[in-house]
Amino acid sequence: MKILVLNCGSSSLKYQLIDMSNEEVLCIGLVERIGIDGSILKQEKDGVEGKLVVEQPMKNHEDAIKLVLEGVKDSVYGGVKEMSEIDAVGHRVVHGGEKFAGSVIITDEVEAALRECIELAPLHNPANIMGIDACKAILPGVPMVGVFDTAFHQTMPASSYLYGLPHELYTKYGVRRYGFHGTSHYYVSQRAAAMLGKNIEDVKIITCHLGNGASIAAVDGGKCVDTSMGFTPLEGLIMGTRCGDIDAAILPFLMEKEGLDAKGLSDLMNKQSGVYGMTGISSDFRDIEGAAAKGDEKAQIALDAYAKKVKKYIGSYAAEMNGVDAVVFTAGVGENGIDMRAQIASNMEFLGMKLDAEANKVRGKERVISTEDSKVKILLIPTNEELVIARDTLKLVQK
Amino acid sequence: MKILVLNCGSSSLKYQLIDMSNEEVLCIGLVERIGIDGSILKQEKDGVEGKLVVEQPMKNHEDAIKLVLEGVKDSVYGGVKEMSEIDAVGHRVVHGGEKFAGSVIITDEVEAALRECIELAPLHNPANIMGIDACKAILPGVPMVGVFDTAFHQTMPASSYLYGLPHELYTKYGVRRYGFHGTSHYYVSQRAAAMLGKNIEDVKIITCHLGNGASIAAVDGGKCVDTSMGFTPLEGLIMGTRCGDIDAAILPFLMEKEGLDAKGLSDLMNKQSGVYGMTGISSDFRDIEGAAAKGDEKAQIALDAYAKKVKKYIGSYAAEMNGVDAVVFTAGVGENGIDMRAQIASNMEFLGMKLDAEANKVRGKERVISTEDSKVKILLIPTNEELVIARDTLKLVQK
Repeated sequence: MKILVLNCGSSSLKYQLIDMSNEEVLCIGLVERIGIDGSILKQEKDGVEGKLVVEQPMKNHEDAIKLVLEGVKDSVYGGVKEMSEIDAVGHRVVHGGEKFAGSVIITDEVEAALRECIELAPLHNPANIMGIDACKAILPGVPMVGVFDTAFHQTMPASSYLYGLPHELYTKYGVRRYGFHGTSHYYVSQRAAAMLGKNIEDVKIITCHLGNGASIAAVDGGKCVDTSMGFTPLEGLIMGTRCGDIDAAILPFLMEKEGLDAKGLSDLMNKQSGVYGMTGISSDFRDIEGAAAKGDEKAQIALDAYAKKVKKYIGSYAAEMNGVDAVVFTAGVGENGIDMRAQIASNMEFLGMKLDAEANKVRGKERVISTEDSKVKILLIPTNEELVIARDTLKLVQK
Repeated sequence: MKILVLNCGSSSLKYQLIDMSNEEVLCIGLVERIGIDGSILKQEKDGVEGKLVVEQPMKNHEDAIKLVLEGVKDSVYGGVKEMSEIDAVGHRVVHGGEKFAGSVIITDEVEAALRECIELAPLHNPANIMGIDACKAILPGVPMVGVFDTAFHQTMPASSYLYGLPHELYTKYGVRRYGFHGTSHYYVSQRAAAMLGKNIEDVKIITCHLGNGASIAAVDGGKCVDTSMGFTPLEGLIMGTRCGDIDAAILPFLMEKEGLDAKGLSDLMNKQSGVYGMTGISSDFRDIEGAAAKGDEKAQIALDAYAKKVKKYIGSYAAEMNGVDAVVFTAGVGENGIDMRAQIASNMEFLGMKLDAEANKVRGKERVISTEDSKVKILLIPTNEELVIARDTLKLVQK
């Protein structure tokens, strides 16, 4: 069975075609600037030099997906000969609200429910729905599955997901912690248990998904009990351009000082903040590390504040689970940030956490990076959200 | 030397007269409804039955302080015969910004600097300044000292006090973490070291000030390295009517949904939230505990969420200091909430923290409440902010 995995953003689309007989990625691609001048598709195939590049106007996601389907049939960079070889499509959906605690076959009812979740994720869900609609039009009859970024976190107890806000904000608007990056936290926590040679039911894991967006989850016995992102992906860690945790009273203060409206506040916190806002340099950690190495004080403080925040979440989730067996690093900074991992894992002996400095000198490889005698294992596990989506799709389609 | 300690709120005033030769509290009182119909002063004296009650219009803080000075001269409930016996006045000041890292003799320059801090604490500092002005008018020539709620936290490193926000919000408006309840965190951390029989420089202490307002501090070697309240006293723990940590993106969402302005948001978060907003019952923990005992589900969730938040902060500060020697409970809930302390300290063995259930059955007494073999000592220490203010006042006046 061959499954197409689609991750639709508002003007972009990431895709992979996966052969589920051996979980081989047949081809992988990215479409950018959908609906904008300069639309472009780039696709690669493992083991084949170069890449397929298609520059052609795409006025919407349907145009884009048509070109994706041409791409996956490409004789050099593709993975199938006929479109009919695509047995199912798995869609990443950002927000499933409280309706979806697991992946689902997409039906009209599901689509209607997804539309109801739009107001919880106005920036993300509409693009996901556009992708679903486009596939329905171009691939009629091919089963589709929705895999939600929020689903894995639905096991959190109310004492983790409710804020200290008036209860009616929850009942009326669904204001609560949802959490995101669920497929990633799920994938790496499962891999972590396998690497430890233990049953997932028997271990306490803290998963650090440190990408441009970043979140941490406490996974007890395979179930998420808490996570740092909240009602939206803003809360929690300091990120590339997002502020993470702040005193919410700063907002009314800024409304009066700067005359910001809802959109102005949202843009400030989501696009102008994080390590970018703290330094004025970049949202890319390599740039911040470079500046800090050259003595830029703000860059050094940003790195210190970032690392401290991760350390503090590790401590808080250890407290929540009364201990931790393994801490996992994944995603861009987690997989490649050797120095950042070292800074986070330093001075954590109180928890029984000891990094192996030599083993830590690696990027993007599954590996134990703690010392032999470290009570808490530290693991580097490259995430694979697409594989989770493909597996869930396979499971549901085969039922 | 006899020192009058004043804690002025916008319409209330708490005071104590302390004899510094033996630190005896000569009398203690509270004025309420200043500038409002029904102004009232109540004063008590240790060892004397009943209380002094004065119901009399007080149109401002000057009126109130005049009556306070009559009260402290009262032949039954007072502490001095003549006003001239008052050698100095110590004022609690909520916000000292970055200007005040310690207590100061109040001069014209200091008053000017306090006025500059008003915009950081618009609800509190004006009342503190009114109190200072009133004393200047009524007690000319009596030295006054300002003791700041924020001062103890000024030792935090930038990586603790800077948010993940654009740096210019810090330079332009002073948007950063300040922290509050500083005199309380200072007092109980010093007492904790004494109870442990250790030098404060050698211990790591986490102080939990759990009152109607609540905050936690990480005190390493006697210096505050982090605290849960932030730019304002809103951030951090779930409180009586304050929400504590939330996803700040909830605010733009509510602005659009409910049409709230800056004041509306501020009121919602500061006055309508916390355990009161979560339950719709009360901001008083005894009421919440009572409701939970009768099976009220929202009350139980509020207690669970409250306790979990405190646990998580303890874990995060242990991570920040790479361990902890003692956890201190103080203030209303901290001193009296036997069940809440038990819930917070339960399932914390990973940290080496073991509560002694029997020893914990106590209210408002200085006591070790951990087991003999608990690696982390758990201490109950009634706070005494007035004594800190009086001692600082004495020290500065005697210089």
